[in-house]
Amino acid sequence: MRQPFPHPLNLDTGLVEMSHGAGGRAMAQLINQVFVAAFDNPLLGQGNDQARLPMPAGRLVVTTDGYVITPRVFPGGDIGSLAVHGTVNDVAMAGAVPLYLTAGFVLEEGLPLADLVAIVRSMARAAREAGVSVVTGDTKVVERGGCDGLFITTTGVGVITDDRLDLSGDKARPGDLILVSGTLGDHGVAVMSQRETLTFETPILSDSAALHDLVADMVEAVPEIRAMRDPTRGGLAATLNELAQQSGVGMAIREADIPLKPAVRGACELLGLDPLTVANEGKLLAICPPERAEALLEAMRAHPLGHEAAVIGRVVQDPDCFVQMETRLGGRRIVDWLAGEQLPRIC
Amino acid sequence: MRQPFPHPLNLDTGLVEMSHGAGGRAMAQLINQVFVAAFDNPLLGQGNDQARLPMPAGRLVVTTDGYVITPRVFPGGDIGSLAVHGTVNDVAMAGAVPLYLTAGFVLEEGLPLADLVAIVRSMARAAREAGVSVVTGDTKVVERGGCDGLFITTTGVGVITDDRLDLSGDKARPGDLILVSGTLGDHGVAVMSQRETLTFETPILSDSAALHDLVADMVEAVPEIRAMRDPTRGGLAATLNELAQQSGVGMAIREADIPLKPAVRGACELLGLDPLTVANEGKLLAICPPERAEALLEAMRAHPLGHEAAVIGRVVQDPDCFVQMETRLGGRRIVDWLAGEQLPRIC
Repeated sequence: MRQPFPHPLNLDTGLVEMSHGAGGRAMAQLINQVFVAAFDNPLLGQGNDQARLPMPAGRLVVTTDGYVITPRVFPGGDIGSLAVHGTVNDVAMAGAVPLYLTAGFVLEEGLPLADLVAIVRSMARAAREAGVSVVTGDTKVVERGGCDGLFITTTGVGVITDDRLDLSGDKARPGDLILVSGTLGDHGVAVMSQRETLTFETPILSDSAALHDLVADMVEAVPEIRAMRDPTRGGLAATLNELAQQSGVGMAIREADIPLKPAVRGACELLGLDPLTVANEGKLLAICPPERAEALLEAMRAHPLGHEAAVIGRVVQDPDCFVQMETRLGGRRIVDWLAGEQLPRIC
Repeated sequence: MRQPFPHPLNLDTGLVEMSHGAGGRAMAQLINQVFVAAFDNPLLGQGNDQARLPMPAGRLVVTTDGYVITPRVFPGGDIGSLAVHGTVNDVAMAGAVPLYLTAGFVLEEGLPLADLVAIVRSMARAAREAGVSVVTGDTKVVERGGCDGLFITTTGVGVITDDRLDLSGDKARPGDLILVSGTLGDHGVAVMSQRETLTFETPILSDSAALHDLVADMVEAVPEIRAMRDPTRGGLAATLNELAQQSGVGMAIREADIPLKPAVRGACELLGLDPLTVANEGKLLAICPPERAEALLEAMRAHPLGHEAAVIGRVVQDPDCFVQMETRLGGRRIVDWLAGEQLPRIC
């Protein structure tokens, strides 16, 4: 067969050009040398505009998420690994096994190909570690100034194989307990300190991680879990308020029980951030019937990504759907949604 | 229940703000008043970060595509309807029935909410007409200048319900015939003339359309179709070269048989464009065994989106995988991939 690309791309010093999005030879070459090379798997290798996917029996789950984070590389991850973890986690929060990802890229003309390759390889590594395949994708190129370097949109496909599971945000009931899988605020503070070039005695790393394996252990141990959600943008405060609204209940949490790294607490004080509204990318919140909470906590703590899990409060009856917190000093305050914006471009 | 949004968004004069992407109350409000309102369906209304999807039996098909077209509104469509049609078509090209879409938005701070609403409503209308539901989505907001107004990434999910179908780009065999469903180049020329504010005696409209219904008729009549593909970016030239490479064959087409509107031909001459490399958004190319071509052509012509369908050439043996064209003047030329870029931001 004729060699279709006589001049290979220079992945060390080359730049993204408009032709890389034009549907011609240059685009085919970028797809082959950068994307197919990194994401290497038989489904992607089919070379069609769509992937045909073998699926185990069960209920199909689909989710989508865009990633526009700046800076693209941050302590503990980059936009590529984040684009895998975030979407894998949204699939897993339904109690589903993540299987496949699709990836849509918007690239800015002039982006160094070396930067693109590094991010795509990081995505591929994160996908491999999470046991998912990137099965189809798309690349668009916009003129210099038309976007900020690189945006990624990933869609995740998974399946709920256990018939007993029925997790949904509208299932919280008064009396249920609220658990988190570990310390809060690490991702947002890590990104923010990178932006502000703050240095701390103990470096703060993003918690960006794929939670599907922790979730598998949790639903195996306690299939009665009512709901799970990962507190990303808007942090714990937004997630609790969303769940309270969806279920028509109130939430009562205790500040003293919320796991927080001392360095994150310090950075939040310094930066004027409320750790409850800071994004996480490797943590989850679970709501479960009180009689099953101990078993669930045990399953979480037995997993490396859940060893600092804690019960932080309980679901209460409240027609106003308020989220209330007992403070360290013994007072009470309302935990509201973030009203404006605190940290833009955090995911 | 407490009313969570005391001040409704002003959809007439309001602008997209950074807070609309921050995960807090403003984002929840935008999602409710703009996206959920337009895409209204029970699956989206679940309000979780992922959708659980009922699926008929069959083979799952997934595809993804980003849309960055400028201008956002063009003769015959807009970025919203295009984001539905393009992705529905990529699902349909596998012979699948499109069922669900996910939609990821990247919005620029300062985008008028009225523009966003118009586009989202156009998407919703196109989805309704195509019989697909937008079941989950995501919104990110970047600072003014961080993107060019609005980018949309849609992922399509469908199912191949007919066991006899096995369409793929690697299945073209020497002797097969090549069909197109109608006139070529309409979309690219419509967008280009809008950009250059050219006016023609006959206005040229984009052909943007959902082809799933035409495809259903085609595979019903001729399940032996080898491959289908929609010639979008890179046009017919890119699609034929892709299929030739994938199947390890050559292609021989006849210029005189390629359907082309006189106005498109004229505009291409004026603008110095090759109609074979101009994007289409409502046309498909099909490859089928010669003995079934007549039945296929008949099925295509019986459908409103295929009444100008034509056989334009055949698959030939060629270890070099060249695409050749017999010109109107009786000569022959190689139809190569677009080498550089002709029309950026066309989809």
